[in-house]
Amino acid sequence: MTVTTPLGFRAAGVTAGLKPSGKPDIALVVNDGPTFTAAAVFTENRCKAHPVLWSEQVCKDGQVRAVVLNSGGANCYTGPEGFQTTHASAELVAEKLSATAAAGVEPTGAIDVAVCSTGLIGDQLDRPRLLAGIADAVAQLDLAGGTAAATAIMTTDTHSKESTYAGAGWSIGGMAKGAGMLAPSLATMLVVITTDAVLDPVGADLALRAATGVTFDRLDSDGCMSTNDTVLLLASGASGVTPSHEEFTTGLTQVCHDLGQQLIGDAEGADHDIAIEVVNAANVQDAVDVGRAIARNNLFKCAVFGKDANWGRILAAVGTTQVAFDPTTLDVAFNGVWVCRNGGIGESRDLVDLTQRKVNVTVDLKAGAETATIWTNDLTHAYVHENSAYST
Amino acid sequence: MTVTTPLGFRAAGVTAGLKPSGKPDIALVVNDGPTFTAAAVFTENRCKAHPVLWSEQVCKDGQVRAVVLNSGGANCYTGPEGFQTTHASAELVAEKLSATAAAGVEPTGAIDVAVCSTGLIGDQLDRPRLLAGIADAVAQLDLAGGTAAATAIMTTDTHSKESTYAGAGWSIGGMAKGAGMLAPSLATMLVVITTDAVLDPVGADLALRAATGVTFDRLDSDGCMSTNDTVLLLASGASGVTPSHEEFTTGLTQVCHDLGQQLIGDAEGADHDIAIEVVNAANVQDAVDVGRAIARNNLFKCAVFGKDANWGRILAAVGTTQVAFDPTTLDVAFNGVWVCRNGGIGESRDLVDLTQRKVNVTVDLKAGAETATIWTNDLTHAYVHENSAYST
Repeated sequence: MTVTTPLGFRAAGVTAGLKPSGKPDIALVVNDGPTFTAAAVFTENRCKAHPVLWSEQVCKDGQVRAVVLNSGGANCYTGPEGFQTTHASAELVAEKLSATAAAGVEPTGAIDVAVCSTGLIGDQLDRPRLLAGIADAVAQLDLAGGTAAATAIMTTDTHSKESTYAGAGWSIGGMAKGAGMLAPSLATMLVVITTDAVLDPVGADLALRAATGVTFDRLDSDGCMSTNDTVLLLASGASGVTPSHEEFTTGLTQVCHDLGQQLIGDAEGADHDIAIEVVNAANVQDAVDVGRAIARNNLFKCAVFGKDANWGRILAAVGTTQVAFDPTTLDVAFNGVWVCRNGGIGESRDLVDLTQRKVNVTVDLKAGAETATIWTNDLTHAYVHENSAYST
Repeated sequence: MTVTTPLGFRAAGVTAGLKPSGKPDIALVVNDGPTFTAAAVFTENRCKAHPVLWSEQVCKDGQVRAVVLNSGGANCYTGPEGFQTTHASAELVAEKLSATAAAGVEPTGAIDVAVCSTGLIGDQLDRPRLLAGIADAVAQLDLAGGTAAATAIMTTDTHSKESTYAGAGWSIGGMAKGAGMLAPSLATMLVVITTDAVLDPVGADLALRAATGVTFDRLDSDGCMSTNDTVLLLASGASGVTPSHEEFTTGLTQVCHDLGQQLIGDAEGADHDIAIEVVNAANVQDAVDVGRAIARNNLFKCAVFGKDANWGRILAAVGTTQVAFDPTTLDVAFNGVWVCRNGGIGESRDLVDLTQRKVNVTVDLKAGAETATIWTNDLTHAYVHENSAYST
C-alpha cells in the first residue's frame, strides 16, 4: 500500500511536538539494501529551503540510505541556524542507524541521509524537539511503518496520500504530501517513492525525470512555486529483478500520476478539479504553455467556481501566449460541449453542467498534432480564506 | 476636468439601452481640429476584440477625427457579424459628423473614427440600439460633454475616472474606465486623452508610449490581460502652442499615472492597493519582472488581504524569476519595516500594520542601481465573488 510495500524498506512516523496540533510530524524511511540507488528532483525555485540545498548534495552521487522528513516547519529562509538544524538531523539519523545496524553492514554517513521539511516558512524549527523525535523514529522503524510515515508528513492535507504499483516480481510504493501552492516545477510536495527493483543511478534518474515531467510538473493548482519541493526515488534492489527501462518508467509514471491526482484533489479550498487538455498543438511545449496560461488565469478559475462555462476568458488567456495558433480558428469545449467554434460563439453554454467536481476543458489549437494536459483547481472563497488566515 | 477641458473637443454620453441596468452606455469624443493628430496603444493579447482590430487600422496614419465608445458589450469573439457592427458604428459617426459639419470642414470618413467597446465577451451587441444611440450621441455633442462621456464608459467601475494637466497655454484632459482584469500590456481599460497642444504624429506616439510604459503598463491587478484595451491620444492643436517633447511627456505621464491610480484604487473587490517597489536591480526589466512575479502570486495577495506581512511568500515569488540576485542577500520591507534581511528573518512582522488600504512593499535585490514600481491589489473574497457571479 505504501513505501514499505517494496522489499528492503522500513519506515516510521512519530510525534515530536513540532505542530501546535500535536499530530505526528516526523517520518523516516530507511533503505536496507542491498543497493542504495537513488534519484531526486527538486523545486526550481531559486530561493530554496535548507533541506533542499542539503538533499541536493546528498543525492548527487546517486546513493541514499535514508530520508528523514518533518512537518510543522519548512526550515526555509532561516539563515545559518536553519542550515545547521538540517545538518544535525542528517547526522543524528546516520549515527542512530549506524549504532543499530546488523553486524557487517557498512555504517551510514550523514551525507547519505536526505532531509525534507514542510510547514511555515521563515520560522526556526525547535531543534531539541526535532532531534528527540528523530531518535524516536529510528527506534520505531518497522517493515509496516509506511502509513505512519505518510501520515506524519501531512500539513493542510485532509488525508494521507499513498500509491503502489506491482511489477513482475518487483514493486513500487509511494507517499506524498501537498495541498496547495501547487505549481511547477513540481507542485508543492514532498514525495518519497521506493522500489525493490534493481536500478542503476542513471536509469533511476532518467525514469524519475520522465515520470515527473508528465505528472507532477503538469499540476498547477495556484501558480505558486514552492521552496521545499522534493521527489525522491529510493531503490533497494531487494527483489533481485531488473525490469526494462520502459517497464519501470511505466510503473513509476503510474504511481506519480496517482499521487499527483490525489494532490490536486485535496488542494486547499478547491471545489473543482480541472483537466485542461490542449490538442493539435504544433509541439508539446506549446500545449503545456497554453494549458498553464489558462490554469493561471484567476478570472477563468473564478468562473469555474461559479459554474460558468466562460470560454471568453479561456481565449483571453490563450491570447497571452506566444505559441502557434490562429485566433479565428480556436475551438473550446467544456465537458465535451464545444461552446467556442472558430474563435466565436459555438454551442450554448447553457448545455454545460459544471456541478460535478471534475471538469474537462479542451482547447483545439489546430496547429499540429501534439497534446498535453495540465491539471488545476478553481479559485474559491475557501482558497482565499485558507491562505489569508493561515501563514505558510 | 476632463476630455473637453482642452480646446477643440466636444463630447457626449447617452443611454442606448445596451446595459440591463439602463445606465448610460455610449460615449463620443470628437476632435474639431484644426489638427487631427492621434496616437494609440492597444492590448497585446493575440485574441483581440473587433473594435481593437478596427481601431488599429484607423490609427495607423496618425490621424483620428472621433472616437465612439460603448459599454454594455465588448464585441469580442463575435465573428464576422461582430466586426460588421464595429464598422457600422464608425460609418454612422462619420456620416452624421459630415452631415452636421460647418461649411468648409472636410467630411469625416469611417477610417478616421476609432471604436472602443467594453462589457461581456462573446455576446453580440444589439446593433439597432447601438446605432440609434450613436445618432443620439452625435446630436448631443457638447463642449462640456466630457463628464457625460466618462460616465457612459463605466462597467463595474464604482465611479467615473477623469484627470487633467495644465501646461503653459495648453492642457491635457483624460478619461478612463477599468475596474479589474488589470494587467499588461495595459490594464483592462479604455482611455481617451485629449490635448490642445500642437503635436506631430511621431511625437505623439513617442510621448504616449513613454507615458503608458511607466504607468498603465505597470498596473497588474490580477494578472489577466484583456482583449479590448485601448489608450487613445487625440491632439487638436487648438491652443496654437507647441510644448517641448519633455514638457508634453511629463504632463501626459502625470495624467496617465493619475488615471492608473484611480483604476487600481477601484479594482473589483480589492481591500488593499499595493505598491511593490523593487530597488537596486541590475536593470529596469529585472525590477519589473520581480515586481510582476510578486504581484501575480496569489498566496502573497491573500496574505495582504489577511493583513499578514508574509515575506516568505515574497521570497518564494522572487525565486521564480531569472533576474540577477543572490537569495542570501535579499531584503524585504512592508511599509518600511524590514521584515526580511539577507534572505532570513529580520524585524518582527508584528511591527507591520496592514490595516490601511495603501501598502508599500520594498524588495532590495542588491544587484544594481535600477528601480521600478508595480501596482497591484490583494486577493479577496469579494474578488472571487464578483468574478464567479458576473460573466465578463
